[in-house]
Amino acid sequence: MELQKDLNCSDKIAQQNLFIPQISTAIMIDQIMQQAAAAFPEYRRLDADARATFLERIATEIEALGDALIHTAMAESNLPEARLQGERGRTANQLRLFANLVREGSWVEAVIDTALPERVPARPDLRKMLSPLGPVVVFGASNFPLAFSTAGGDTASALAAGCTVVIKGHPGHPKTSAMVFGAIQSAIAACGLPEFTVQHVEGTDFALGKALVQHPAIKAVGFTGSYAGGTALVEYARERKQPIPVFAEMGSINPVILLPEILAAQPEALAKQLAGSFTLGMGQFCTKPGLILALESEELDIFLKAIGHEVPALPTMPMLHGGIHAAYTKNLHLALEQPGLGVLGKTEKEAEGIVPTATVALVDGDTFLANPLLHQEVFGPYALIVKCTSKAQLANILQHLEGQLTLTFMATEAEAIVHADLVELGQDLAGRVIFNGVPTGVEVVASMQHGGPYPATTDSRFTSVGSDGIKRWARPICFQNYPAQLLPAELQNENPGNIWRLVDGSFTK
Amino acid sequence: MELQKDLNCSDKIAQQNLFIPQISTAIMIDQIMQQAAAAFPEYRRLDADARATFLERIATEIEALGDALIHTAMAESNLPEARLQGERGRTANQLRLFANLVREGSWVEAVIDTALPERVPARPDLRKMLSPLGPVVVFGASNFPLAFSTAGGDTASALAAGCTVVIKGHPGHPKTSAMVFGAIQSAIAACGLPEFTVQHVEGTDFALGKALVQHPAIKAVGFTGSYAGGTALVEYARERKQPIPVFAEMGSINPVILLPEILAAQPEALAKQLAGSFTLGMGQFCTKPGLILALESEELDIFLKAIGHEVPALPTMPMLHGGIHAAYTKNLHLALEQPGLGVLGKTEKEAEGIVPTATVALVDGDTFLANPLLHQEVFGPYALIVKCTSKAQLANILQHLEGQLTLTFMATEAEAIVHADLVELGQDLAGRVIFNGVPTGVEVVASMQHGGPYPATTDSRFTSVGSDGIKRWARPICFQNYPAQLLPAELQNENPGNIWRLVDGSFTK
Repeated sequence: MELQKDLNCSDKIAQQNLFIPQISTAIMIDQIMQQAAAAFPEYRRLDADARATFLERIATEIEALGDALIHTAMAESNLPEARLQGERGRTANQLRLFANLVREGSWVEAVIDTALPERVPARPDLRKMLSPLGPVVVFGASNFPLAFSTAGGDTASALAAGCTVVIKGHPGHPKTSAMVFGAIQSAIAACGLPEFTVQHVEGTDFALGKALVQHPAIKAVGFTGSYAGGTALVEYARERKQPIPVFAEMGSINPVILLPEILAAQPEALAKQLAGSFTLGMGQFCTKPGLILALESEELDIFLKAIGHEVPALPTMPMLHGGIHAAYTKNLHLALEQPGLGVLGKTEKEAEGIVPTATVALVDGDTFLANPLLHQEVFGPYALIVKCTSKAQLANILQHLEGQLTLTFMATEAEAIVHADLVELGQDLAGRVIFNGVPTGVEVVASMQHGGPYPATTDSRFTSVGSDGIKRWARPICFQNYPAQLLPAELQNENPGNIWRLVDGSFTK
Repeated sequence: MELQKDLNCSDKIAQQNLFIPQISTAIMIDQIMQQAAAAFPEYRRLDADARATFLERIATEIEALGDALIHTAMAESNLPEARLQGERGRTANQLRLFANLVREGSWVEAVIDTALPERVPARPDLRKMLSPLGPVVVFGASNFPLAFSTAGGDTASALAAGCTVVIKGHPGHPKTSAMVFGAIQSAIAACGLPEFTVQHVEGTDFALGKALVQHPAIKAVGFTGSYAGGTALVEYARERKQPIPVFAEMGSINPVILLPEILAAQPEALAKQLAGSFTLGMGQFCTKPGLILALESEELDIFLKAIGHEVPALPTMPMLHGGIHAAYTKNLHLALEQPGLGVLGKTEKEAEGIVPTATVALVDGDTFLANPLLHQEVFGPYALIVKCTSKAQLANILQHLEGQLTLTFMATEAEAIVHADLVELGQDLAGRVIFNGVPTGVEVVASMQHGGPYPATTDSRFTSVGSDGIKRWARPICFQNYPAQLLPAELQNENPGNIWRLVDGSFTK
């Protein structure tokens, strides 16, 4: 199971040596961290507009890299041009989303309770808002070389919060990462910000990750990747004298529940939709639906036959790199070796190089319940369908699954209401619950929750996608009886930024 | 240092056996937890008004206990009548504050992004709100037998969030705790709620605390007490298959910085104010100012002389119990034995029984910096004054202190602005930064932050005092394309509760 978890959402490149003695790494890391700490006071003092302008400038500098960036990323990740163009758009949009959020300003959750001097005892003036934590480390992810890597959502949200950032580039796309970091450096220079507002380190040595997380100057860590990687970072953070939060998104099997009425109405359409979703981008998404649950019925048989026909005809392409492909192949075989599993369909084209064999398999509910290995993610184009004998068995399976990023119901409105108890079980399990859609689209909006109960993420109270991602990098500070001149703009009586605040119990601008 | 930390904010009663075999404890705990889990779905489904009514009923049931509760708490805690009457008022107010918060309803941070069917690809309807985590465990604290114990802030906020609660009664006031739990049971019966919405367990065996924290049904833990106790609970939680958040408030030395102008203007008044604050309630507050930092000057000498005269004349009273008194005496002696420390003043009245000797001591900046033991909390009526040779030394000390609940500046407005760099250092260190007041008053309001960087608390992003304490017990869930009938009231188009929501980027009711 560990082996399987090892290769969840991102991957681990085989450990290589940096070819520099360990002592040099430690000295280099210490210098980088000191620089990040020294830049923090100046960077956090920037007003909202200056911070927003910086984020926007990063977006335009990335866009200015033009086709060269796309072609570099294509060569390093095997992802197709259109996908990377779309991802570049998302990356720029995320930076602009956080620019807008910072410029609007209400994200700091300002609260003011004015003094009550007549009360016995007198109540002092109390004001509270979110303030940046300090320098943070962001680990680039492999499966989104732009949108969740060097200038991705973690970096954008941390910079928006007012933190300085040390990026650990993902070794799967070093040239792409270096180019994007160059764009960030150009933006730093153009905006006249401290040189070390953002820094970039490369390497594949585990000791490097440990040194980054354990440096005393660092206040939080962002990570999207494997269970093994995420839990290692959590452990490093725990060993510190001052433990710090690690926001690790570690993958999920994103169960899909097919309820009977909708299945009876459109078995073939559902088969087509789900086959497309679990193989999208060769299944290299954290939200890939890897588990499909349904009650046995004639209509399910039609669905099974249909999905068995869909999959062989699907287009394939190489995976992100050889390491991910090797892990997929290994974990796929491990899953298929389990007793009681039958292959319903697989891509016909013989696998070549690092092109995977997309596969859909079937198992009965009892076998699934009894074998926890089948509950683990197989990162890549694989899905397992579980045929349940009863609603009680389906509910029992939901109660035995681990925490998930998403959970999806395919259901008519009427049967959703009849089976509200199942929906409630689903809500307990996941960060996002979907009706009649596929989980593989993740909107970058305020209402998004990309973070579910452990082990999907290490902290289900936060999201790594959408504007609330900024809250990972801040903590509330209460200012009591402050001199007006020393109050942050967000807490001044005049409310110069015209932000929403809770003042003496009422929301107001 | 561990020994000293052992006795921070709360205390540990000497470990006793429960006189029941371990296997029985495990069975009992499992049954209690199953009951808490079974009650959760029904309790969470209560509408806001029903939940608020329940909290209000607990308050009136506690008030209905009348003098008997006060007298019981006096006998068990040695706290005076007026203090306990005030604390009962605060306890009831907290319950009513959370009732109001729940009834108003905006605490769930509802966000709605409506569908964009025309967009390519179409955007689904996305709605997000905070939802209760599940059954939680609350450990009663010894130093607030009412306001931070059985029906204190942790229990009130968890019930407000929609969680069922298992209370571990503090062994320092078992009868008080049982009476308050009786009031909760009366409220449960009066409101017709599930019997096991709140449960109460007693015991001093560490295995009991471990079993509570490690039961799979439990989703979070609240604790106010010692560093040793808090870190043990964190470790238990980490060992779980599914780690859970532990909100532990573990104490602080709450530094006070005296700046020169204000010290020159009113050295005697400051001495009186600070002597009163660090000995208030025999120093048994998490926010007791245990460290006073100032620059050497003639005015400081006047202050030192004045505080040396103030302390001996202060009234004393017994501490909460023998264990806390023994620890105070031991840790006080350990501190005073350190080279370079001089006693400025102590209460003259010979200590009797468990009445402590209030003590104020002096040390120079270099000695303080070199001896980390002096940075640790001595829980009780003790404060250490550090005479600094320069502002640089004072800043250096701030940079070497651990995380704090509070940090206080005594300063004129003009010098606060001149020394804004020190103020910024203070903000990095604490959850609440105070000007010209004492930290020992903690208002129960929305703007309060009672939670600072580690080790003051285990999670500086949350508060255990004030209405935002509710956020400890909830996580966001995103509802995508939901059938209208299955949406929580807070996310329905009609907004039946008339709460504030962020709809398509605008705050609106």
